Amino acid sequence: MIRPGILARADIGRTREVMRVTLGEGKADLAIVNATILNVYTGELLNGHSVSIKGEWIAYVGDRPEHTIGPRTQVINASGRTLIPGLIDGHTHLADGFLVIDEFLKYAMRGGTTTIVTETIEPFPVAGYEGVTDFLDSLRNQPIKIFATAPPLVSISKKTLGIPKGTLKKLLSRDDVVGLGESYWQGVLQEPERFLPMFYETVRRGKRLEGHSAGAKGKKLMAYLVPGISSCHEPINAQEVLERLRLGVHVMIREGSIRSDLAAISKIKDAGVDLRRLMLVSDGVKPGDLLQKGYMEWVVQRAIDCGFDPVRAIQMASINVAEYFSLDGIIGGIAPGRYADLLIVPDPKSIKAEYVISNGKIIAEDGTLLVSPRKHTFSAKSRESINLPRALEPADFSLPVVKGTSHVNVRVIDQVTALVTKQVIMSMPVVGGQMKPEAGKDILRVAAVDRRYVPGKTFVGLIRGFGLRTGAIASSSAWDTSDIIVVGENEGDMAGAVNRIRDLGGGVVVFAKGAVLAEIPLPIFGIMADAPIHALAQEVEEIRKKMSELGFPFDDPILTLMTLTTAAIPFLRICEQGLVDLKDGKTVGLIAEEKA
Amino acid sequence: MIRPGILARADIGRTREVMRVTLGEGKADLAIVNATILNVYTGELLNGHSVSIKGEWIAYVGDRPEHTIGPRTQVINASGRTLIPGLIDGHTHLADGFLVIDEFLKYAMRGGTTTIVTETIEPFPVAGYEGVTDFLDSLRNQPIKIFATAPPLVSISKKTLGIPKGTLKKLLSRDDVVGLGESYWQGVLQEPERFLPMFYETVRRGKRLEGHSAGAKGKKLMAYLVPGISSCHEPINAQEVLERLRLGVHVMIREGSIRSDLAAISKIKDAGVDLRRLMLVSDGVKPGDLLQKGYMEWVVQRAIDCGFDPVRAIQMASINVAEYFSLDGIIGGIAPGRYADLLIVPDPKSIKAEYVISNGKIIAEDGTLLVSPRKHTFSAKSRESINLPRALEPADFSLPVVKGTSHVNVRVIDQVTALVTKQVIMSMPVVGGQMKPEAGKDILRVAAVDRRYVPGKTFVGLIRGFGLRTGAIASSSAWDTSDIIVVGENEGDMAGAVNRIRDLGGGVVVFAKGAVLAEIPLPIFGIMADAPIHALAQEVEEIRKKMSELGFPFDDPILTLMTLTTAAIPFLRICEQGLVDLKDGKTVGLIAEEKA
Repeated sequence: MIRPGILARADIGRTREVMRVTLGEGKADLAIVNATILNVYTGELLNGHSVSIKGEWIAYVGDRPEHTIGPRTQVINASGRTLIPGLIDGHTHLADGFLVIDEFLKYAMRGGTTTIVTETIEPFPVAGYEGVTDFLDSLRNQPIKIFATAPPLVSISKKTLGIPKGTLKKLLSRDDVVGLGESYWQGVLQEPERFLPMFYETVRRGKRLEGHSAGAKGKKLMAYLVPGISSCHEPINAQEVLERLRLGVHVMIREGSIRSDLAAISKIKDAGVDLRRLMLVSDGVKPGDLLQKGYMEWVVQRAIDCGFDPVRAIQMASINVAEYFSLDGIIGGIAPGRYADLLIVPDPKSIKAEYVISNGKIIAEDGTLLVSPRKHTFSAKSRESINLPRALEPADFSLPVVKGTSHVNVRVIDQVTALVTKQVIMSMPVVGGQMKPEAGKDILRVAAVDRRYVPGKTFVGLIRGFGLRTGAIASSSAWDTSDIIVVGENEGDMAGAVNRIRDLGGGVVVFAKGAVLAEIPLPIFGIMADAPIHALAQEVEEIRKKMSELGFPFDDPILTLMTLTTAAIPFLRICEQGLVDLKDGKTVGLIAEEKA
Repeated sequence: MIRPGILARADIGRTREVMRVTLGEGKADLAIVNATILNVYTGELLNGHSVSIKGEWIAYVGDRPEHTIGPRTQVINASGRTLIPGLIDGHTHLADGFLVIDEFLKYAMRGGTTTIVTETIEPFPVAGYEGVTDFLDSLRNQPIKIFATAPPLVSISKKTLGIPKGTLKKLLSRDDVVGLGESYWQGVLQEPERFLPMFYETVRRGKRLEGHSAGAKGKKLMAYLVPGISSCHEPINAQEVLERLRLGVHVMIREGSIRSDLAAISKIKDAGVDLRRLMLVSDGVKPGDLLQKGYMEWVVQRAIDCGFDPVRAIQMASINVAEYFSLDGIIGGIAPGRYADLLIVPDPKSIKAEYVISNGKIIAEDGTLLVSPRKHTFSAKSRESINLPRALEPADFSLPVVKGTSHVNVRVIDQVTALVTKQVIMSMPVVGGQMKPEAGKDILRVAAVDRRYVPGKTFVGLIRGFGLRTGAIASSSAWDTSDIIVVGENEGDMAGAVNRIRDLGGGVVVFAKGAVLAEIPLPIFGIMADAPIHALAQEVEEIRKKMSELGFPFDDPILTLMTLTTAAIPFLRICEQGLVDLKDGKTVGLIAEEKA
């Protein structure tokens, strides 16, 4: 239950106690004997080895543990079983899965994840520095270690874009902040002068620059890497992985709720190249997946099932990650002086933890959690993040046209896949000075409503391919912005959905014919719930079901909706300031000059 | 000619220029085309690849460099040859080879070494913080990058022992200081409370703890590692290497003037273990070796000749070292955004650089240096380090015995090998109140004379196995102390040798029958010369020859002499405070109570 990071080394007395156990002058609290140890440093499986633990730390590893074991030492005989290091998720978004950390950990820890590195990009645009520190406070003093990256921050909204240098410095000076979060490559190439000073502040502290180079290749990818970007979790096949590895990038293979890239990427194992710079990461796990599949134990098992050598697979979720973040002196392997974070599994190919040990404590046994994560009390401010000055009216979502004309050419967001959008120019009829998207053509209104910087500021656009035959869906979680994002077939239901979010203090709401059909209250920052995971998973499923009934064609309506505001996924996106074409990063209005 | 380290990233304008070249919007200064590139990240040899360089940095790496090449780009066609990263020496003692840095670099750079990490343990005891910073200043703004570690400092003299916390913090806050220097294991186990706070200050800054675990194994080795020691350059065989690798230690294989361990250690290549944590280091190169053999190019070639796969051997002197010191974002491989530090060699098995490129400049061609290292002017204080208040008298080396007795039992340093000593208890005749070592039994006087803290304070002991039939040898370079160390057959020549050092302001002097037989002036800190390498090599050879003529039985009299004061090598050592048995670290006098 200690603080993450190297600060424990400050406790000289405790370190000396561990040294005394190593020498046999004191006795271990816990010893696991007769195990096969997976040594991630050498890649060996060493039979008949034991680990002795004092407090949070490993005091001894080897085949002669007797001098460390006393009458009060708890001894676990692991004969026939394998000891592996605790698993590390090197890249996730803990604030993007709706769950607050204590609820998340109840289900994340039992399978063997003992360290997490999370982005903080979500609380920053909606709640600023205080929001991020409140979020970081929620991650501290948990049974496992949680580190974070500072938000860069890439946003299509100029109001939300960036992080003040002073704020960044304060965050980077924290021991639990190990880098600068993902900086989307297009933004870096479009506005290097905005990013390079932030990058410098990060690398001069010896911390990492998280990359996000989805789809980039060749000279553009290289130009993006020049200022020191050190990782990427976006490649989706072995070729993209190999290109990045060759360029000195640490590649994170993503297997989570956003994407599952392991199967396609696993071919890299046959390329005959050094895999030391590969990591396994989740990039975020939604409540349903966490319940059904598990966390990093599931990802590592997938890697093994995809044909990775078990030793390599486990290295990719332990030492490789620890080395990447320069944390290998305290975590990532089973060696003296490291935190006692380890799992007893049946064999290296079966990542089913019989025991999960974190910071020297047995925190789970056969999938049953033995400790309780700490529940954090978020500040009143963090719980009051929906600052709309008034209820919205249907008229707030109207599309007035100034000049007297019967048609107008507009830029429409074309939802071509569940996540990718394109710009399409369409001619829109004008009736009574208002655009009237034609019924039956699947042209819906989409609006972004700022809830923080200029509360109530709204931009209304059009979207095709969202499928709703009636009603509206709104979310106060909208990637990289401080917006509420809403898509609807009519202005009344759009206003109704947003107003319901205002009443809830944040949430996702499906609203049709004047009534709430389904909702997820997200009172914390407007992005996180304080509900139990089962209730949340059910609410998420209910949203999915209702949206499907309303005609939504993809699998995950919330993800499709909340990514409409991000600069991470091409091409045409929306924020409270207008439409943004990620190809050039320019903000434009709805009316296009040229004809389709 | 830039400062070492990540500070170059602060130059946003320059970074943007590099990015523009990557994209083809600007043109490279230098391009090496059609090479086979050794990619240390993947372990591949990639044919037909090119590198484009802008300023100090690599802008592009790949098989389509055309867009980066303009009319003013210097193009080197490396068809049929191999491009490898500049070589890194991860552990050396630049102040222990007598040469000042500019003279050293003239011969060290031409073979392909482009980064050095040096200890600063030598200037600290004799000149303190100001001495270390003067030394560090001499390393800055050189054609290659030089990093350093702060001195811990382990000394058998209680006066010299340790480094004030404030001094350490100032050094650790420097960008060119990447860790805390070697902390001998016995000292750490004997006085952990002295070391652990220093270790904490280091690791909390994300910097490394250099280890020195010569001969340690099992539980003692593990106890030493518990507080976070991250490396060791002392193993002398594959078994010692394997034990350390398994314990998570980064192992430095030493091949230099102090020891040559590569041949014995090379068996590790057949152990089937991950070699990512192996490094090749010199641990110090003397003038003669530098002239005859070269520097890291010689070490890497030796590794290849000892059977290491060339890719692995080169990784061990490039990316493995860069990763260990968290410098892999700027050096260690050939990738965009790294410093353009690279060599063109005939093939991966032949480390004979046709071109050496450092910070984007061609600094050597076919073994001929094209740039001049910067000559540093050391401060007057650094040049006045021999603070003896008066000339010494023969009586200063007398061995008076207080009680009236014909014999006395004394502790004698037994020089059992060139470096290892043992304690032997002997009965010594007393004549006229003075001990009289019997002639012909090879019992000589040995004395340590402080030249800084209590100038002139002298302890006189006895040594066996040094072989001198007459005369004396003295050195103001005496490991880990502020002492002048002197061994002699008679008190007069001992005084003469020390007084000559006083006149020279530092040096090594062989003195017999009232006259100087050979000497090396060492005016800088009393440990470094400002003479050219050939003169120095000749002086060193002259000392060796004279000492051999006088009866000295080992190969390197200076090394044997100057290590008499170190805690790094077992067992009985001497300083101005007395004799120290490294087994318990206690300081004792010459008179032993028990009989031999």
